[in-house]
Amino acid sequence: MAKEKKVEQITSMDVDFGQWYTDVVKKAELVDYSSVHGCMIIRPYGYAIWENIQKDLDARFKATGHENVYMPMLIPESLLQKEKDHVEGFAPECAWVTVGGQNKLSERLAIRPTSETLFCEHYRNIIQSYRDLPKLYNQWCNVMRWEKTTRPFLRTSEFLWQEGHTMHETAEEAQEETIKMLHVYRDFYRDALAIPAIIGQKTEKEKFAGAEATYTIEPMMHNGYALQGGTSHYFGDGFARSFDITYTGRDNTVKYPHQTSWGVSTRMIGAIIMAHGDDNGLIIPPAVAPIQVVIIPVAQHKEGVLDKAYAIKAELAKTLRVKVDDGEQSTGWKFSQYEMKGVPVRLEIGPRDIENNSCVLVSRVTGEKKFVSLDNIVEEVTAMLKAVHNELIEKAQANLESKTYVATTHEEFLDIAQNKPGFIKAMWCGDVECEDQLKDETGGVKSRCIPFVEDHLSDVCVCCGKKAKHMVVWGRQY
Amino acid sequence: MAKEKKVEQITSMDVDFGQWYTDVVKKAELVDYSSVHGCMIIRPYGYAIWENIQKDLDARFKATGHENVYMPMLIPESLLQKEKDHVEGFAPECAWVTVGGQNKLSERLAIRPTSETLFCEHYRNIIQSYRDLPKLYNQWCNVMRWEKTTRPFLRTSEFLWQEGHTMHETAEEAQEETIKMLHVYRDFYRDALAIPAIIGQKTEKEKFAGAEATYTIEPMMHNGYALQGGTSHYFGDGFARSFDITYTGRDNTVKYPHQTSWGVSTRMIGAIIMAHGDDNGLIIPPAVAPIQVVIIPVAQHKEGVLDKAYAIKAELAKTLRVKVDDGEQSTGWKFSQYEMKGVPVRLEIGPRDIENNSCVLVSRVTGEKKFVSLDNIVEEVTAMLKAVHNELIEKAQANLESKTYVATTHEEFLDIAQNKPGFIKAMWCGDVECEDQLKDETGGVKSRCIPFVEDHLSDVCVCCGKKAKHMVVWGRQY
Repeated sequence: MAKEKKVEQITSMDVDFGQWYTDVVKKAELVDYSSVHGCMIIRPYGYAIWENIQKDLDARFKATGHENVYMPMLIPESLLQKEKDHVEGFAPECAWVTVGGQNKLSERLAIRPTSETLFCEHYRNIIQSYRDLPKLYNQWCNVMRWEKTTRPFLRTSEFLWQEGHTMHETAEEAQEETIKMLHVYRDFYRDALAIPAIIGQKTEKEKFAGAEATYTIEPMMHNGYALQGGTSHYFGDGFARSFDITYTGRDNTVKYPHQTSWGVSTRMIGAIIMAHGDDNGLIIPPAVAPIQVVIIPVAQHKEGVLDKAYAIKAELAKTLRVKVDDGEQSTGWKFSQYEMKGVPVRLEIGPRDIENNSCVLVSRVTGEKKFVSLDNIVEEVTAMLKAVHNELIEKAQANLESKTYVATTHEEFLDIAQNKPGFIKAMWCGDVECEDQLKDETGGVKSRCIPFVEDHLSDVCVCCGKKAKHMVVWGRQY
Repeated sequence: MAKEKKVEQITSMDVDFGQWYTDVVKKAELVDYSSVHGCMIIRPYGYAIWENIQKDLDARFKATGHENVYMPMLIPESLLQKEKDHVEGFAPECAWVTVGGQNKLSERLAIRPTSETLFCEHYRNIIQSYRDLPKLYNQWCNVMRWEKTTRPFLRTSEFLWQEGHTMHETAEEAQEETIKMLHVYRDFYRDALAIPAIIGQKTEKEKFAGAEATYTIEPMMHNGYALQGGTSHYFGDGFARSFDITYTGRDNTVKYPHQTSWGVSTRMIGAIIMAHGDDNGLIIPPAVAPIQVVIIPVAQHKEGVLDKAYAIKAELAKTLRVKVDDGEQSTGWKFSQYEMKGVPVRLEIGPRDIENNSCVLVSRVTGEKKFVSLDNIVEEVTAMLKAVHNELIEKAQANLESKTYVATTHEEFLDIAQNKPGFIKAMWCGDVECEDQLKDETGGVKSRCIPFVEDHLSDVCVCCGKKAKHMVVWGRQY
């Protein structure tokens, strides 16, 4: 009966992946829609995932020497215009404040789409000497980019994110930081979100407005689409020159510092949903799951059952995030409910289990049922959580591998693009014309990145046949 | 020599309290100014205080059953207008977005000055039955109120805060929540910020736009001024009626739920500065201090000194926030620097100390020096931190008591208001005319609150001589 209910609840992912996604975010109570253009309400269960993400990532940033700061949310138009490429990239998608209090403003203020310009203005004030470097700052905040079509977590006008902004004495040091933070993201995706990903450099066409180089982490979703999961930019001294940020070096000459920025956002929750979910709903990786274990009492009206459930909770809660559901709904309803919510491990405890000093653990990924002794319940649950993490990453890795194709000819590329959703590895000459052509011909397959590890597939560009410079991973994206 | 330096650094608080405040926030590197109207940059040291405040308060909110959510930062004008008193209170101080992307918007959007209206819109969607109640939500976010005159932390156009918004079945339950959260704030001020405060109810004139009752926590600053340190509002079912939020009750009839909201902000950092600081700079209460102990190596070039300093740090860092300053500046400069930054305890360690297996601890509040054995350094430092907390609260309590006056006649009230900065306890008839008159006559002394514990000072209003209804605490405010 529980099974039937599940099937009713949401669209199957194979039938309509987009509708499945929409169903899941609503049914799992991650978001609600609002009357505000392109903005979402993140409900407690969704926000708790974000809090767990923040806590984990923030510790990684601090362990690598970064400090948090807070900049204003508004950017005067003249400040945004200081760096030419940057304003061209962002001004078209800004929300503009033109009235403050009762008065029309003399200058428009953009709600920050990103904060490079604000950080630069501040850095100009506080950097004078090489002794002031490096500056390793990060900010957790909301940003806004006016979007026409929106989808919860994946593309919303307002979203929550972190943006690291750092300043360094030398180009080498800044480049090293750029790559280091990309690896922090890669590790976080792998170890906390259980999502493997390709990392590499964006092409000129796809890089960030104002950057010299943009690096990206590109996980694959269940349906073969890519999600740009995070980016890390090397700016050289371009912004420093535009904003006149200088410092006196060790050799007593005046120099420009070198800059980076890097960010990930609530979009990661979209990645979790689409990398791990199934037809029963969400599957949240244990490291960021708001509830890691849900305890469902069976025949809870019987004497001792609820007491035992709460005793087990008390034991587990010392190290884990645990909930007992003693509500009036049926156990079948509860099973479906916490499957929908993607709780990694379910613990069932009833009168017979108590007699046997045991309980049942069920993995959300495999559905495997395991009878375990209550004597070492903490170890058993912890082990199953670890197994869930490993199963998730293996499943995602298998999906990535099975949906990554190699194209050595133009025809092959178009055939794969049309018939096989996934990543395509193919050689590229380095010209934007070929990127544009492939995108047009395929209706949206774009270069994801030049991966750090390139295969040599052939000598020539898959599009124009000229000498190839790089292997590129291509794919459709959210 | 260190003493001389300190005197140079900042204006004395007795000479010019306002300038002292400005000097401290800059010299202690809490904030920087920006080119954005009325917005401040919160620097790492200032933001770290906020992070500690958030962590502590958030745990208190969760322990009382609250969940965090995130609402959009923009409010359509029509939504803001749904509750009449509310829009009158806030619309005049909103920043308005009128252009999104390239297009003029058909409806203006306010950057949230507070989020009652957004929560109500959401509650309308998710509350149907008494089973959906209570809803105990909180949000950590930025808000904006267009201010003419600004001062870091105390009054800025943008500030960071938390706003609790809860919905309940009955008026009694909502009223209980309102008072409960005020006490959470009171406990936090006392136990974490070491700031005693008066709590009570705002008069009709001073209550929040749209509330039935507003409660407040009013700590006293060093100079006798009040700071509205946090508020908790009971809304009755007013917003619920305006937003058509209903639920089916236990008796199967349709009812309006009862609502509260409550908030504290980065303004609390202003309270810390002005309640505890002295002519040497900040004093940060240990519970929220970014650095609780700074270790200053003396004669650090001598063999073993830095090693020992770092060994002590490793020991202390297991439970405390510790920094070793091994920079090239003189120890005198360092002493002044960390006094300015308000680090509660300084630990000095030099060659002779190491020979004696001891070190020196210095309290930031009393300047007391204590030679302690390294054998139980964790206990000694922990004990001194506790002593610092107690000394801070005792000092603040003494300041509050010595600057709280009683006025039983109009003349006495005006005399105190003119000559003795502080709080004035005086009887009041309950009429807004008397509040207005006293404010006008004194150039700004306002009712702070009707405290929960009222003294009976006389039978008549200190202003008009009519029968008194309440004892009110009056004072000038930031």
